[in-house]
Amino acid sequence: MAVYTEVSDEELSAFVDSYNVGALTSYKGIAEGVENSNFLVQTETGPYILTLYEKRVNPSDLPFFLGLMEHLSERGFNCPTPLKNREGKALGHLAGRPAAMVTFLDGMWVRRPSVEQCEQLGVAMAQLHKAGEGFEIERANALSVGGWRPLFAMCANRADEVQKGLQNEIEKELEYFEAHWPKDLPKGVIHADLFVDNVFFLRGALSGIIDFYFACNDLLAYDIAICLNAWCFEPDDMFNVTKARAMLKGYQSVRPLSLEEYNALPLLARGAALRFHLTRLYDWLNVPEGAQVTPKDPIEYLKKLRFHRSIRTPMDYGIER
Amino acid sequence: MAVYTEVSDEELSAFVDSYNVGALTSYKGIAEGVENSNFLVQTETGPYILTLYEKRVNPSDLPFFLGLMEHLSERGFNCPTPLKNREGKALGHLAGRPAAMVTFLDGMWVRRPSVEQCEQLGVAMAQLHKAGEGFEIERANALSVGGWRPLFAMCANRADEVQKGLQNEIEKELEYFEAHWPKDLPKGVIHADLFVDNVFFLRGALSGIIDFYFACNDLLAYDIAICLNAWCFEPDDMFNVTKARAMLKGYQSVRPLSLEEYNALPLLARGAALRFHLTRLYDWLNVPEGAQVTPKDPIEYLKKLRFHRSIRTPMDYGIER
Repeated sequence: MAVYTEVSDEELSAFVDSYNVGALTSYKGIAEGVENSNFLVQTETGPYILTLYEKRVNPSDLPFFLGLMEHLSERGFNCPTPLKNREGKALGHLAGRPAAMVTFLDGMWVRRPSVEQCEQLGVAMAQLHKAGEGFEIERANALSVGGWRPLFAMCANRADEVQKGLQNEIEKELEYFEAHWPKDLPKGVIHADLFVDNVFFLRGALSGIIDFYFACNDLLAYDIAICLNAWCFEPDDMFNVTKARAMLKGYQSVRPLSLEEYNALPLLARGAALRFHLTRLYDWLNVPEGAQVTPKDPIEYLKKLRFHRSIRTPMDYGIER
Repeated sequence: MAVYTEVSDEELSAFVDSYNVGALTSYKGIAEGVENSNFLVQTETGPYILTLYEKRVNPSDLPFFLGLMEHLSERGFNCPTPLKNREGKALGHLAGRPAAMVTFLDGMWVRRPSVEQCEQLGVAMAQLHKAGEGFEIERANALSVGGWRPLFAMCANRADEVQKGLQNEIEKELEYFEAHWPKDLPKGVIHADLFVDNVFFLRGALSGIIDFYFACNDLLAYDIAICLNAWCFEPDDMFNVTKARAMLKGYQSVRPLSLEEYNALPLLARGAALRFHLTRLYDWLNVPEGAQVTPKDPIEYLKKLRFHRSIRTPMDYGIER
């Protein structure tokens, strides 16, 4: 649930008038997203999404995020496209915040994706990786292996409040990843947050992908690893190999994996599980006063991490190349 | 901020298909309203508002609320109109909750209404009172004078936590109102919650009124009293008599007040202040675990109550009949 900044009708009307989209007729705060304030804005020409970037977003990253959405859209990838205002700029200011308006994407996210939807996700993810080629701005992944130890340092001494022995377990994971994280796999632009609520479907078909505010340059297969965790576990924490196979089949129909990428999947999936476990652990232990967002349970990703730790090769999942 | 119930795309699609509005293409939870879950739904025929009625709404009141919106719409009053499903019913069920879809109303609520907007509100409120005539279902006002003592009983012993002496002060107010509340003023259907966020304006003109979930049968002038409090005080807690005069002028251009109604305004405004003070006091002292709504400060309405207590006749406000 997220509207952190109140906007008055006068200032929003003036902001909308700086674009060539007709006059504002309505706006509603959207109860989704945990990083920024989002509004569904209606003007005389249709619906748009307005985002006010809150303090967790670094303003210097905005040219990357907005430029990437524009780059992907131009290459036919279905994602929100930033509107340019009358001065030709995608980035404006509203209510003391950096702000942008993007096109509205039809479709809905699915609470429990089907095998077929996992396959479609695989196809779209590979298309995203291909469409990202040639994008000129670079953004390092602040939440890759190098970012985990500083993040853990901010909550390590309280980790055992969540589960006894957790501090020691994570410490060992960090040492392992710092020694073994792959460096020579294919790199490119990744979404880095392809959870089910960022992927829309309409009438059975994937209609687009949203929320590029974690996108960065990193190992392409790391995006797959994130999705193995986010899409292929059932509510009872069991890994659904049929979904994983479908996702990889879809992905490889567009961009086949190298043998090195394929073999790295268990390690990458374990690392991706640690990354989301750590951010959830931090948020869990640091709920701000008056928080309007319920933190997500870090245990879910701890279980996924342990599962992947038990895997030696993708064959152990049941995934053939 | 309010989406209390998660809805899956499958169940919402099926629900929308029970109406003759085309297929569902998108839906977003709306971060407004504190009683129910609201979604902005887009279908092939346009935008609609879907409301899931949460436990603070008594299901037996829903025929009154939905019937009233239909009754008012039929008489040309601008408010959301409930859609009838293929079985001819306005009330359905979704995700284990009573649910309804209503037409989407263009316009935006104003954070700081102008004098002119107060006048327009007065006009619309009187039109609402007139349009409500002939509506056949009755609903008593559970939050009129008879409901205040039971409400206070649930938080009286903690009232002094908010301000020293408050328990005693409210006790005296209750005694006063129970002895002096008027009984013979004109009655009808009132909105009973005409705060600024329930009144939409578009291009300077009032475009409609929403949220009829406190509507009931009560003294018509009590609605005016609620609006004197909600629209005619400035952020520094000062009463703005120019706005109050404009509101009454607008109201009386459609429905002139009787002398008895005019003379009762200070008492009714004081009572309306107590009513909102009491619900805010209760909510302030009873924030549920994991609440996603920040309770409103009860002191604001205590100040309004004390201001009205110092008034003998509407002439003391500066309002002539």
